[in-house]
Amino acid sequence: MTTDEAIAQTMQQLGRDAVAAQRVLSISSGEQRNRALHAIAASLRLHRAAILAANERDMSAAIAAGLGRAALDRLQLDAARIDAMARGVEEIAALPDPIGTVLAEWTRPNGLRFQRVRVPLGVIGIVYESRPNVTCDAGALCLKAANAAILRGGSESHHSSIAIHACLVEGVSAAGLPDACIQLVPTTDRAAVGQMLAGMTDFIDVIVPRGGKSLIARVQQEARVPVIGHLEGLCHVYVDRAANLEMARSIVLNAKLRRTGVCGAAETLLVDAAAARTHLAPLVRELLAAGCEVRGDAATCAVDSRVVPATEQDWHAEYLDAIIAVKLVDGVQGAIGHIARYGSDHTDSIVTDDVATAETFLARVDSAIVLHNASTQFADGGEFGMGAEIGISTDRFHARGPVGVEQLTSYKYVVRGSGQVRP
Amino acid sequence: MTTDEAIAQTMQQLGRDAVAAQRVLSISSGEQRNRALHAIAASLRLHRAAILAANERDMSAAIAAGLGRAALDRLQLDAARIDAMARGVEEIAALPDPIGTVLAEWTRPNGLRFQRVRVPLGVIGIVYESRPNVTCDAGALCLKAANAAILRGGSESHHSSIAIHACLVEGVSAAGLPDACIQLVPTTDRAAVGQMLAGMTDFIDVIVPRGGKSLIARVQQEARVPVIGHLEGLCHVYVDRAANLEMARSIVLNAKLRRTGVCGAAETLLVDAAAARTHLAPLVRELLAAGCEVRGDAATCAVDSRVVPATEQDWHAEYLDAIIAVKLVDGVQGAIGHIARYGSDHTDSIVTDDVATAETFLARVDSAIVLHNASTQFADGGEFGMGAEIGISTDRFHARGPVGVEQLTSYKYVVRGSGQVRP
Repeated sequence: MTTDEAIAQTMQQLGRDAVAAQRVLSISSGEQRNRALHAIAASLRLHRAAILAANERDMSAAIAAGLGRAALDRLQLDAARIDAMARGVEEIAALPDPIGTVLAEWTRPNGLRFQRVRVPLGVIGIVYESRPNVTCDAGALCLKAANAAILRGGSESHHSSIAIHACLVEGVSAAGLPDACIQLVPTTDRAAVGQMLAGMTDFIDVIVPRGGKSLIARVQQEARVPVIGHLEGLCHVYVDRAANLEMARSIVLNAKLRRTGVCGAAETLLVDAAAARTHLAPLVRELLAAGCEVRGDAATCAVDSRVVPATEQDWHAEYLDAIIAVKLVDGVQGAIGHIARYGSDHTDSIVTDDVATAETFLARVDSAIVLHNASTQFADGGEFGMGAEIGISTDRFHARGPVGVEQLTSYKYVVRGSGQVRP
Repeated sequence: MTTDEAIAQTMQQLGRDAVAAQRVLSISSGEQRNRALHAIAASLRLHRAAILAANERDMSAAIAAGLGRAALDRLQLDAARIDAMARGVEEIAALPDPIGTVLAEWTRPNGLRFQRVRVPLGVIGIVYESRPNVTCDAGALCLKAANAAILRGGSESHHSSIAIHACLVEGVSAAGLPDACIQLVPTTDRAAVGQMLAGMTDFIDVIVPRGGKSLIARVQQEARVPVIGHLEGLCHVYVDRAANLEMARSIVLNAKLRRTGVCGAAETLLVDAAAARTHLAPLVRELLAAGCEVRGDAATCAVDSRVVPATEQDWHAEYLDAIIAVKLVDGVQGAIGHIARYGSDHTDSIVTDDVATAETFLARVDSAIVLHNASTQFADGGEFGMGAEIGISTDRFHARGPVGVEQLTSYKYVVRGSGQVRP
């Protein structure tokens, strides 16, 4: 048997076990699943030392392999981060149980009573990269919605993920649920990802990829199962002629600089040409003063000698860094046109005191999240009040925007009659 | 340029035109789209003779090619069928406008006001086979929800589809909307389907396949865009020990024989072993008397010499014909187990007067539609009160059960603030 055949066999077994475990989950109570979540949180705190030891192995290997500072930071765990994971699981437990919720009900003239009822999606495969906390967050979110999870973490965080996964299994088992409710792919061979994307269609209902562009590209190319995508966030702030300058300043700085590495960080600032004299210079100077590199069009370059001339590439750039592209546009229509051309359908914001202009922007900008007079950094399930999330979907299909517990469900129709037949 | 390159070029142009048209649709009013729908209905009636002439060309070719009776019936149009198409379009016009509906709204402690608002899916590709009325139904449903449609009908119905599509364009244009809101793929070359499935990911948001197993298999293999699937309906009726025999008789006959060729037709009858003496023989004899072939297990064969012994294959069979497989099972648990093993997650019904048993069945059978004391033939968007539908989805993702206008939409989040920034 070749390695690939052995991996295929392992993955098929994981798939069969997940389906069997999900069948048990689908008839479990929300109370039982919450007990499992609380037991997971307790287990994470109990085994903190073991998790940290496993993480140290990963960190040593990563340092030896010459990983960059940002990647090392994503990989590293400490007591506070483990405690944050445990608290995150408890917060998921505190969310309302989505399963069994009646989403709609109605009665037809023939007396048939219809209900649309929330049910689990089934078996969810999650393919992610170096952050070991995704093992915990994704496993817990799937469990809350009675889905079985098959987790495939990055090779750099493999030992950390194994240690965290042991806690997930301990918690699930303590609540009397099958271990296979949350499985971790035991191999770091990339062939396992290929199996999840295309070889396990009988077992996996949905794939959630969490990672960089090369992972997303691979998923789009290979996947034979539905995918909840999570593409780049090329977010815009448009400052309109009717914007309050003080509010614009505060929103632009927050949207760009609060955290530059999140998908809701603003990458491009569009300023209404009609406000060029009043608003452009103060905003650009504030950004420069805050340590942000500014790449601008001719008008922006004229503001300050530190502004770098922008190229076509800059309007396409998701910097995820303290860099911003700045451009004058011809009013709200110009902003809408620019965003339609360069945006990534993620999150875009308008700053204006003119309600009609705001409503035009909110209606015409076709992004998952559109905001009026608020920072793009609110693009986050927690800030939406949805609790934990597995990412922000830029798909139009199934789930758009933050993907929380509810987005990890499907529904069925329950129809109650008294002998009706169809004429 | 090879034929394939020429087709690819044609399809890319169709895709670009669809995206541009959809942008206009996305800011159209429901009233304008309804005007287009009414104009389409009028145009279908006005050009009835031209549609019938085109259909005659298709029918002659199909007869010459030796198509079977059922296929010819699916292909044939007459005045009544054209009128039914026109009425169907008017019924779609009468449905509430889904676009812009606020699905949920809430305010966060920081004062941000959130709305989840229904928006179109975008550009929908529909790949179907011989029924020419799908050209009309699918085009009208997409239009209602402000989606652009790219229609690819079967080669047998190509002339009929061209004639119907001309009416769709006439109606769309009369309402001042772009012709490309509803496009028909001009070639019957199969390469065009390949383009829709994998070569137009920049333009097509969703594919809806309508057809037999070979089409579905091709879509599953090749699609690089989301798919609203429509698999087989292997529907079951389970007659419980606590079933009223008269009700069971009426539901079983209707579920199997009202129309045998629809996906909601029952294919397997499961009878509670505890009711074998009272219920099995009357049900089997009624089916035989109604002209239905019965393939049964040993107990069923013992009822009547006309019963054919069932093989393993029969429990897997979607006959779509006057044939039924019949089996004794060990109570509701036996029925649930059989359906989990052989069912297609489409539509399944229990007949019983015992409410607790019914609720067990409704909760445990994991199908898109589960019914209590009603015929499986109610698996239909119209019977659900949803109006026209494009099919019954057996997927768990995005849309499950009847796919009507609402299922052809997505949503976005609109967030209104007063200067909020994220701490």
